[in-house]
Amino acid sequence: MRQLHHFWLSPFSRKVRLVLAEKKLEFELKAEPVWERRDAFLSLNPAGEVPVLEEEDGTVLCDSTVICEYLDEVYTDTPLLGADAKERAEIRRLVAWFDGKFNREVTDHLLGEKLLKRFFSTGTPDTKILRAGRTNAAYHLDYIGWLFERRNWLAGEHLTMADIAAAAQISVIDYMGDINWSKHPRAKDWYMRIKSRPAMRDILADRQASFPPSPHYADLDFE
Amino acid sequence: MRQLHHFWLSPFSRKVRLVLAEKKLEFELKAEPVWERRDAFLSLNPAGEVPVLEEEDGTVLCDSTVICEYLDEVYTDTPLLGADAKERAEIRRLVAWFDGKFNREVTDHLLGEKLLKRFFSTGTPDTKILRAGRTNAAYHLDYIGWLFERRNWLAGEHLTMADIAAAAQISVIDYMGDINWSKHPRAKDWYMRIKSRPAMRDILADRQASFPPSPHYADLDFE
Repeated sequence: MRQLHHFWLSPFSRKVRLVLAEKKLEFELKAEPVWERRDAFLSLNPAGEVPVLEEEDGTVLCDSTVICEYLDEVYTDTPLLGADAKERAEIRRLVAWFDGKFNREVTDHLLGEKLLKRFFSTGTPDTKILRAGRTNAAYHLDYIGWLFERRNWLAGEHLTMADIAAAAQISVIDYMGDINWSKHPRAKDWYMRIKSRPAMRDILADRQASFPPSPHYADLDFE
Repeated sequence: MRQLHHFWLSPFSRKVRLVLAEKKLEFELKAEPVWERRDAFLSLNPAGEVPVLEEEDGTVLCDSTVICEYLDEVYTDTPLLGADAKERAEIRRLVAWFDGKFNREVTDHLLGEKLLKRFFSTGTPDTKILRAGRTNAAYHLDYIGWLFERRNWLAGEHLTMADIAAAAQISVIDYMGDINWSKHPRAKDWYMRIKSRPAMRDILADRQASFPPSPHYADLDFE
């Protein structure tokens, strides 16, 4: 069985889980405590980061973008990266936006302060950093809304890797309750649409007793 | 004429310059003062970052990885991303290593402290951050050496995007004189090999009077 080494609240792990689910590829999740820097894991990925995918033929793939590009090349039934070079460039631009800019400006701030500080007992969340993360989130949600007003999905007519990269990030910060959806009705419409896909079910069922999700996290209609 | 909006000491701009040069595609450089957040530039790339490539047919491409994937798809004469999905996964893994891990652990530290603090007059370099950047650089140079002992180029038999991504980062920190090459003979052998390629000439000719390069920056043999 294909194995995905992951961390449940890592947006990059979630991106790969969504791609595997959209492509109806079976896989087993293996939680990896990356902070332990286990030798067995470092020999799979010297960068020491999740996600890592082990294919059944023994191929080991590291880095979410590398994994997603590979899966889209090898399993072509549900293409998620577009039909030609220009479409792919727009889809990949948005993937880079969410993986890079959104993650750096929003998710890193909120996840770092809320989850990691609690988990590693390194202090209480810094309200200035939390505020910065939430302010940046509002700007990104406006961009999602702006795109969704003009397109059927974020990169065009069809659901693509761009929607998946965005949903992976958004689902993490929505788990923590950091989105005021009433202020972003267009982005909410987009998120409701992607939340209702079967591929999102496992992600929406994720929860840890010691760090429970926001009340509306798994709701398909929400405020 | 194809135009590349860039910043001379941005490793990501350098990566695209190297790919264009390896593929013998002509282009004009346009320096972009990203910190001014000019409207005309933001309308090309709402992320406000370099590099941005404007193709002659009007296609606008943002983000270095997006640009490099596009160029390799459209201009197939000198393939830089491998022949099949597994080769591409290994090349892209190393590109992600240098663009992500190396940039975050080394270049961001050194460039941020040395160039940006001077340029924007925001203080003197923090020696702790400089030391962290240099310590991390040593570990990455060892990894380059380890790969180069086993392979003809970083990802295998041929020069690929992996070498280009690495050379783009290394050339920036070598400009600032932050590599003790005598401690990394294997990595030095690899860098000498890529430095001697015609595609590197423009990069090695780059210099700013107010921030001059290390004495050996452009030398093809160096200590």
